[in-house]
Amino acid sequence: MTTDIHRTPVPFVRDDYIERMSGVVEDAVGAGLTGVIVAPGPDLVWLTGYQPTAITERLTMLVLSIDRDPTLVVPTLERPDAESAEGASAVTMVDWADGSDPYPLAGSLLTADGRFGISDSAWAMHLLGLQRARPAASFQSLSDSMPMMRAVKNAGELQRLALAGQAADATYEEIVKLRFAGRRETEVAADLARLLREFGHEQVDFTVVGSGPNGANPHHEAGEREIQAGDAVVLDFGGLMHGYGSDTTRTVVVGEPSAEVQKVHDIVRTAQQTAFEAVRPGVPCQDIDRAARAVITDAGYGDQFIHRTGHGIGVTTHEPPYMVEGEEQPLEPGMCFSIEPGIYLAGRFGVRIEDIVTVTESAGQRFNNTDHTIRIVE
Amino acid sequence: MTTDIHRTPVPFVRDDYIERMSGVVEDAVGAGLTGVIVAPGPDLVWLTGYQPTAITERLTMLVLSIDRDPTLVVPTLERPDAESAEGASAVTMVDWADGSDPYPLAGSLLTADGRFGISDSAWAMHLLGLQRARPAASFQSLSDSMPMMRAVKNAGELQRLALAGQAADATYEEIVKLRFAGRRETEVAADLARLLREFGHEQVDFTVVGSGPNGANPHHEAGEREIQAGDAVVLDFGGLMHGYGSDTTRTVVVGEPSAEVQKVHDIVRTAQQTAFEAVRPGVPCQDIDRAARAVITDAGYGDQFIHRTGHGIGVTTHEPPYMVEGEEQPLEPGMCFSIEPGIYLAGRFGVRIEDIVTVTESAGQRFNNTDHTIRIVE
Repeated sequence: MTTDIHRTPVPFVRDDYIERMSGVVEDAVGAGLTGVIVAPGPDLVWLTGYQPTAITERLTMLVLSIDRDPTLVVPTLERPDAESAEGASAVTMVDWADGSDPYPLAGSLLTADGRFGISDSAWAMHLLGLQRARPAASFQSLSDSMPMMRAVKNAGELQRLALAGQAADATYEEIVKLRFAGRRETEVAADLARLLREFGHEQVDFTVVGSGPNGANPHHEAGEREIQAGDAVVLDFGGLMHGYGSDTTRTVVVGEPSAEVQKVHDIVRTAQQTAFEAVRPGVPCQDIDRAARAVITDAGYGDQFIHRTGHGIGVTTHEPPYMVEGEEQPLEPGMCFSIEPGIYLAGRFGVRIEDIVTVTESAGQRFNNTDHTIRIVE
Repeated sequence: MTTDIHRTPVPFVRDDYIERMSGVVEDAVGAGLTGVIVAPGPDLVWLTGYQPTAITERLTMLVLSIDRDPTLVVPTLERPDAESAEGASAVTMVDWADGSDPYPLAGSLLTADGRFGISDSAWAMHLLGLQRARPAASFQSLSDSMPMMRAVKNAGELQRLALAGQAADATYEEIVKLRFAGRRETEVAADLARLLREFGHEQVDFTVVGSGPNGANPHHEAGEREIQAGDAVVLDFGGLMHGYGSDTTRTVVVGEPSAEVQKVHDIVRTAQQTAFEAVRPGVPCQDIDRAARAVITDAGYGDQFIHRTGHGIGVTTHEPPYMVEGEEQPLEPGMCFSIEPGIYLAGRFGVRIEDIVTVTESAGQRFNNTDHTIRIVE
């Protein structure tokens, strides 16, 4: 843990957003697209710094294409908010009023027979509206057409992810000092959330506390179960700090670990380390998954590792690239993602170890640096 | 304020969800659809009680159609969570593992040339996946095809909305006792959030504090502006309680209101009351908008009322029916929505008054019952 945590990064400015938008247009052309349709959410925040108060049925969309200036369609009453975003001065803004149909306007910004990428999380109703307004145009999700749009981080982004990782590490070092036995999972989860905020997170996205059998469900959050002596407890926590994500998992044990917990933990630890050591530019994402999976499969627990090995992270805690079988995308310097193998023994316990990692020119580098031994908690 | 606030409603059970699902299939047939595709979010919560931990790129969808039992597609690792939802025992569940393509499986649940309604907020990438898997099928947003799917509330839902409204009223009665002058908008907003939680909300969705000129931006949230003597302050706050929404606005004044603030407030108050008195079964939604708008337009402020008059409320704080010009849907008993006219004088101040209202057999009934006079705060 360093004192860096409380450092405030230099804010992104207009030119940062212009650079991102023109980079996306270039990538779109390279991907055979006419342009890209960006919905509120991580894509829009990353491209303009604009996050509507709420994502609602009212259409907001940014059109980036080869044949026009970046144009943001916004509801009239949200226009003042949009104009106050840092990247807003770099786009043309058009608004539409309640009671009018926004799709003819939005469609008019799209080449009639163009091919467009559209944000994964754009609302289906908006896509259907655009398909109606531009029946000859074709649409593909950005996951399919430009999955790596936000995947390679620049220096300012890497700094933010490093700071978020340090805050998560500080959170972990504090949580293991607190009592577990006799408290409910939800109480420990509340402590995790409090600590993440204390160490600088503006948003907490998840605070998984999976004790004993609950740890065997990888998507268990935190429940009313009282943590018992002897429990293995999966702690998986993260959120956003300076707009960028943290996501860290450690598995602790209340008192001495059983021989089986220790054995499973050793396997997961080796799997995590092996996958980490496989990271370098040019390696396909699926190889990171394979590296972790081989260790666990060889140890006889292949069927108990029931999820992919990792996911990208940036302005959201879950994004491409995915470390999963079938993903042939080669790693590039500046990509950032989780490596989080796990073993889940139904009805008994689970173990997962997760660090955020970035790709340097030659290897992997961790943004989480707390050790991987089993910590004993009280 | 009554002591009802702390009453816990009877939980919804399996039969409630079965009733909703079969009602939706019936309505779908009536709307000329083969079935309905339900995405995580309010539609899925309402139909099954299931809310995934996070809404991610992993496909989860419920298919309701005439020719099969309700079927829920879930990612393998989220299946245990899904199975623990109250409505889960009433559906067939199929899961897909990381690394496999879920769309052929999901598509196989859809009649090849069927017509399907799909949740407005379903991700575009999922819709595109289904369109690829079922190129002869057609899709429409539920807003277009079955906008009133969740609009008419049953007794258990009305009870929850009434409790949420009472908690919002209690919040208002407490916030006006607190100091405004010299504090930042964000501090008052934090008090609103704290009070909503204290009075039973499990989720706070918005806490708008628009002081002085900030009140003239209807979607301003709360900023660093220090509230001044003489400011009109728009307070618009709400969230979920027992899973159902509150959404209330009052405009208070720090010290004595100016003649102009008083005048504008009187107009908005009359507009709100006039619209409320127009509520009864059979009246088209747009007439509620027209009733409010006529008052404001006649008073010379038509151009400063820049949004629709209201929106439905239920498991989300923003849903059909919308009280907006062009919405010809007749009101029905059990519909619940906001009536929230406002006047916004750019750079100076804004006034908005909002209550949640339900339609009875003969009239409107408010779920917010604090008075509409201008409250003077310190």
